[in-house]
Amino acid sequence: MRELEFIAEIVRKTGITENPALKIGIGDDCALFSSPAGEDLLVTADMLVEEVHFDTRWHDPYLLGRKSIAVNISDIAAMGGTPRFALLSVGLSSRFSADWLQAFTRGTLDMLAEHQCSLIGGDTVKAESLTISVTIIGSVETGREIRRESAAVGDTIFCSGPLGLAAAGLHICREEKFSVEDTRVYKSQRLMQSHLNPVPRTHYGKCLAGSGCVSAMQDISDGIATDLSHICTASGVAAVVYEKMLPGHPDLDDLCSEKGLNPLDFQLKGGEDYELLFTVTAGLEEQLKQQVKKALGQVPFEIGRIKQGSGVVLETVSGRTIDIEYQGYEHTAL
Amino acid sequence: MRELEFIAEIVRKTGITENPALKIGIGDDCALFSSPAGEDLLVTADMLVEEVHFDTRWHDPYLLGRKSIAVNISDIAAMGGTPRFALLSVGLSSRFSADWLQAFTRGTLDMLAEHQCSLIGGDTVKAESLTISVTIIGSVETGREIRRESAAVGDTIFCSGPLGLAAAGLHICREEKFSVEDTRVYKSQRLMQSHLNPVPRTHYGKCLAGSGCVSAMQDISDGIATDLSHICTASGVAAVVYEKMLPGHPDLDDLCSEKGLNPLDFQLKGGEDYELLFTVTAGLEEQLKQQVKKALGQVPFEIGRIKQGSGVVLETVSGRTIDIEYQGYEHTAL
Repeated sequence: MRELEFIAEIVRKTGITENPALKIGIGDDCALFSSPAGEDLLVTADMLVEEVHFDTRWHDPYLLGRKSIAVNISDIAAMGGTPRFALLSVGLSSRFSADWLQAFTRGTLDMLAEHQCSLIGGDTVKAESLTISVTIIGSVETGREIRRESAAVGDTIFCSGPLGLAAAGLHICREEKFSVEDTRVYKSQRLMQSHLNPVPRTHYGKCLAGSGCVSAMQDISDGIATDLSHICTASGVAAVVYEKMLPGHPDLDDLCSEKGLNPLDFQLKGGEDYELLFTVTAGLEEQLKQQVKKALGQVPFEIGRIKQGSGVVLETVSGRTIDIEYQGYEHTAL
Repeated sequence: MRELEFIAEIVRKTGITENPALKIGIGDDCALFSSPAGEDLLVTADMLVEEVHFDTRWHDPYLLGRKSIAVNISDIAAMGGTPRFALLSVGLSSRFSADWLQAFTRGTLDMLAEHQCSLIGGDTVKAESLTISVTIIGSVETGREIRRESAAVGDTIFCSGPLGLAAAGLHICREEKFSVEDTRVYKSQRLMQSHLNPVPRTHYGKCLAGSGCVSAMQDISDGIATDLSHICTASGVAAVVYEKMLPGHPDLDDLCSEKGLNPLDFQLKGGEDYELLFTVTAGLEEQLKQQVKKALGQVPFEIGRIKQGSGVVLETVSGRTIDIEYQGYEHTAL
């Protein structure tokens, strides 16, 4: 398949004309779009490499396509924004069949369509290892973005969902040497789906940005120990996380008791949950919970407190304090 | 080197606060910027892979950094736009030393600085093959962009500079098995620089977009046979190129006579010149030439004519007509 044919096929499959702000999609030197008055633009880029960020032995191509887009949309969600446009560049190895590529492409397009996000550019090239590079451009009402740098002493730390499930799913795939078929029949689809098919929290992020209660936010990509360290470093504050308040999941507990593992390791250091981690201005916690419950039918989990100083510590059930700053999941160490 | 340290080092080296439209640079989930009223946004992405798009045996890392940015800025130039923001994702192999990486990074930052373009995001990951993925966001006055699709019958075809020089430089590096040192002392630095260190024609592109004379444009990345085919396909027209009018260069002629090669092959099919290829509305040719000469001190080269029908042909010096549609340089065939 030639470069242009692959891109042209993607163009045919996407509704690039559906977005009124888009003036030129794929097919010219650049895409061209307008930015509505009163909005600012958000942009994020990630590169995913085979065997570093994903493993095609157990990652179904359709789900890998979905996840490649989801992890970038999650960055837009973590600012309280709306994803608008995507660029997808793929370094393709000849080891992958046309069927595999079609399923992968379908996955990217479905995830984009579910978020009303248009594919407007990119590139396909030959490569030894499958390499996926995604750029997402989003928008946010001017002044409404939630940054990392604005957490204040006394704020309460929340997260949007259970922690460590994606890392537990990855652990199973690795330890059990799973195939794609194995992932489909494994007893805990919750753990499998958390790793293979994460859902970016765009509605949640917009709800939080619109609440007026949230001071700082980011998505959970490297585990809360590391992701909370980013917020604390950017904001010039410290954080304490309470072990007893960390949200888990029965399937994570089952796995850990069966294998003799500690759920806490997954909850603190497990990456790729793509839940939202955020701080709420002191005194506004109940108001925030009510607003989220009304809008989304669920209540965020309170997990800690912002303090003066620097660093991130865990207060254990027994009352001990342990330094957990930057002890998260690293995709790669060069 | 860890992911964040490498990015942080890049942040320290860039003047990301110099752009008043930029509200958040590297360091949060996303970058955030505003778009001035009356302007639209342009965006383009390219992925470059070692041994497919470049060869580090003869490509100096500093120049490779420059070129990685230049080829994307060239796409912005080809719409008549101004580059504003860049995202750089790099898949790094451990085969490259810290010195090599520093030189590469310095090259990317120098090329960005020369175009007042700010690095606002990206990613660094581990990879087997060196992989470089760049996204450039630019701007253009609303309604002033030059598209590929607007060439009309009777228009005159121009290019901004000599053709085939970059391909000749690449030919020498490949055939002579050049090292980085060899490229520095080769007798024709014009051929070497065209391949190793191309200059994106941003001023030229803006001058053309502002002239009111140009109907269609793109940059020359795959050779005029293929690039002109893109314009013709998008515009629903045909083109004839006149052999006798194709701009060459004495150094290209010297190489070809020495090696028994045909300059015409380089001029028609040679990729990566990153000159501009454009069509001028019939009757406005002289006005356009005057405007370009006044603004840039040089005159564009008239090379052909837009006709009714489809396809691209060459009219040779002897008066023969040869089909050259889509016969250009392809980086990769999957």
